Amino acid sequence: MTSATVLEHVERNFDRSVSRLVNWLRIPSVSTDPAYRSQCRQAAQWLADDLTAIGFRAQLRETKGHPVVFAHHPGPAGGKGPHLLFYGHYDVQPPDPLDLWSSPPFEPSIVDGPHGKRVVARGAVDDKGQVMTFVEACRAWHEVGGGVPCAITCVIEGEEECGSVNMHQFLKDSKHEIVGSAAPTSPCDFAVVSDTGMWDVDTPAITYALRGLVYLEVTLYGPSRDLHSGLYGGCVPNPINELSRHLAALHDGDRRITIPGFYDDVRPLTESERSQWAALDFDESAFLGEAGLSEGYGEKGFTLLERQWARPTCDVNGIKGGYQGQGAKTIISSSASAKVSFRLVPDQDPRRILDSFRKWINGQLAPGCRVEIVDHGSGRPCLTPIDHPAMFAARAALKEAMGRDPVLIRSGGSIPIVEGFKSILGLDTLLIGFGLNDDRVHSPNEKFELKCFRAGQRSHVMLLDRFARMAK
Amino acid sequence: MTSATVLEHVERNFDRSVSRLVNWLRIPSVSTDPAYRSQCRQAAQWLADDLTAIGFRAQLRETKGHPVVFAHHPGPAGGKGPHLLFYGHYDVQPPDPLDLWSSPPFEPSIVDGPHGKRVVARGAVDDKGQVMTFVEACRAWHEVGGGVPCAITCVIEGEEECGSVNMHQFLKDSKHEIVGSAAPTSPCDFAVVSDTGMWDVDTPAITYALRGLVYLEVTLYGPSRDLHSGLYGGCVPNPINELSRHLAALHDGDRRITIPGFYDDVRPLTESERSQWAALDFDESAFLGEAGLSEGYGEKGFTLLERQWARPTCDVNGIKGGYQGQGAKTIISSSASAKVSFRLVPDQDPRRILDSFRKWINGQLAPGCRVEIVDHGSGRPCLTPIDHPAMFAARAALKEAMGRDPVLIRSGGSIPIVEGFKSILGLDTLLIGFGLNDDRVHSPNEKFELKCFRAGQRSHVMLLDRFARMAK
Repeated sequence: MTSATVLEHVERNFDRSVSRLVNWLRIPSVSTDPAYRSQCRQAAQWLADDLTAIGFRAQLRETKGHPVVFAHHPGPAGGKGPHLLFYGHYDVQPPDPLDLWSSPPFEPSIVDGPHGKRVVARGAVDDKGQVMTFVEACRAWHEVGGGVPCAITCVIEGEEECGSVNMHQFLKDSKHEIVGSAAPTSPCDFAVVSDTGMWDVDTPAITYALRGLVYLEVTLYGPSRDLHSGLYGGCVPNPINELSRHLAALHDGDRRITIPGFYDDVRPLTESERSQWAALDFDESAFLGEAGLSEGYGEKGFTLLERQWARPTCDVNGIKGGYQGQGAKTIISSSASAKVSFRLVPDQDPRRILDSFRKWINGQLAPGCRVEIVDHGSGRPCLTPIDHPAMFAARAALKEAMGRDPVLIRSGGSIPIVEGFKSILGLDTLLIGFGLNDDRVHSPNEKFELKCFRAGQRSHVMLLDRFARMAK
Repeated sequence: MTSATVLEHVERNFDRSVSRLVNWLRIPSVSTDPAYRSQCRQAAQWLADDLTAIGFRAQLRETKGHPVVFAHHPGPAGGKGPHLLFYGHYDVQPPDPLDLWSSPPFEPSIVDGPHGKRVVARGAVDDKGQVMTFVEACRAWHEVGGGVPCAITCVIEGEEECGSVNMHQFLKDSKHEIVGSAAPTSPCDFAVVSDTGMWDVDTPAITYALRGLVYLEVTLYGPSRDLHSGLYGGCVPNPINELSRHLAALHDGDRRITIPGFYDDVRPLTESERSQWAALDFDESAFLGEAGLSEGYGEKGFTLLERQWARPTCDVNGIKGGYQGQGAKTIISSSASAKVSFRLVPDQDPRRILDSFRKWINGQLAPGCRVEIVDHGSGRPCLTPIDHPAMFAARAALKEAMGRDPVLIRSGGSIPIVEGFKSILGLDTLLIGFGLNDDRVHSPNEKFELKCFRAGQRSHVMLLDRFARMAK
């Protein structure tokens, strides 16, 4: 049996792999909303059953939140290659605003696009579709050769979209089974994650750095009750005006973040990285055009790619306060709140940033105002060495699978757990994903190109083959 | 028959007047929310029926929104006194946030307080309770003497809480019946409105100036769809960050409004007014304490009373954008919106302020952003001459009714229609109200002291008596 036979099997069975993905996408596993609790478990069980069917020993492991799918396959008897940790997530972002979807978010539809057919659904690419590129590659190896070519442990969590709040504890609790003495077969050697993107629809990419994240919710309290703005307006602090003042003060005129010490730990970009990235000839117009924009807007002195990959940023992700209904209501609300997130870059520390924010905002409150800050989860930024042995294997495998050398990129996104693999398990991570910039991740009409779904399956077939041939 | 007999009748029948008010308060006439459309009409009809029962010819007059209760009583046959226009409103503010009410907002409860019993309900004082002080005075005159002592036209509208958007048109359409040749009995001579407050629970007040209002909703649009904040954060304008920036920029460090030309038409306070107001010995601590605050916050260089009565202000009354649910969602919203109101003072012009705001915000938008501004209704500020003949009659009547000279005050609130009485009908307005600062107007647990309800009825009995004796 050769990897070419397995690739052929992938091609022949591709339609069936799409059907399986569609079935999984029908389960609305929205992790952040307690209303979807049972559906999250259902999505986890669906995957555990599927992994069991292709030779894995799969279980649901309980956490304080949604369960983790934990699965192991020993690989070939007597196999000497490395033991791979595959990580992904079965949970998805909330689908709202629902009225902007062209088809219901949990009734996947297959539609035509410029790259052929695509599947439109919440979770199509983030991350169910990407997880299934790996599962389908394992299935092909299983069906053609009776098993995968190296030992694999899968950790597929259900809380990535709400900050992976229980995953660090899970890794600590499971460390002995993943990299310790209780690990089946052998300790894991490195991690592979498919939750990132390709460079374009024809060019694979390996992501060697991720931004970190601090996500907090700040509620500003002023008067003890809602007040009539005619009687009290201009005489007391208005929590919405005040919250706006604080949020506006987060940036200066150069779009730099004003919190004292915020940039202290930022590792400067090297001239070599800047010139390599400039050579990538990133299509800023296309990227901005996807968002309906023609002009970028960000920190002065950096290109768009530098801002996205290597500079820390701050966004308000949600805000609410006062009267939300139709028409007019002349009140001063007693409180207002905002969800605020910071993307961090090496070597910023989420705990230190959160503390700085807390100190900064408390130092500028109007008289009679106070804030409450809730931490919705954070993750450190991380970098994988580009001279890691698995990196060489991966570059070769991706070229074999897709006929093109992969490009080495960073990502502006955050996968908090990747830092946990390093700090808790001591494992580096290869980020090899198959999304595209225009996949509408976290937005209405999220989609996954079937061309990319196929490329992902082919890539994982070849990655498993190459990894199996690595020196341990 | 003397006014003393009528006052005795008021006292004897007071409990029944409370029951009637409670019945009216049960009707949730929330004008700003289309869901309460039929209840608004029901509240209007209730009042028309009650006025009919005490000798008025009352009708519902249609508008583009909620109907107006239009009622007339000719007064005594051959009466020579003035013809009075009484204005009030039967609509109420939305009751939310519902969870902060100690009893349901539309199930009025009578509870004990430091001044005796009080009725707690949405609309208790604003304005159903105040309207009923006048109606009960008319009832007493009707039941004791067979009719009111002077000609009265009532205009009780149903859209005061959403900007009186149809009232100016209504006044134009009805002008011939109120001050023109079609007016029954005679043209109206001046207006009386009970929608303001007393100085304290024992001291009546006549309000001679009101602030004006501009109430707008601004929606800021940026990206064409919600974006992933990891991919796009720091590269594109975030509508919530941008809206916050604009809202924060409305005030400078001295809490002055920064829109160019905003203060151009503000009539400066005279030294005489400033010293009279200082002599009122306003209890700032009690006023702020009602809002749970110990310190004021407002425009530099002015006392609290000056800020409230004679300085223009700006408040954000509501804001929303992005993810509103529980937990974290890492998006950049495609839009964000805020409800923004300005309180105006003589001689500011609402149209000019709205235009200035529009120009100001459009001049500072980030690239790729645009705003939509919806006008939710506006009203000019106004002043009634303190040497108006009806003012002298009112001062005497209030002293007779309550045993104390009334104080002359301004109000920070807005009753847009009062300016319409002047500009459309040519009528000055006496603002004689019976609310207290701690009545929680527009807030949960709105209340009306029964002591004030009684004082209002007594005052209107005496006002009608004094007006009837005025020279035409």
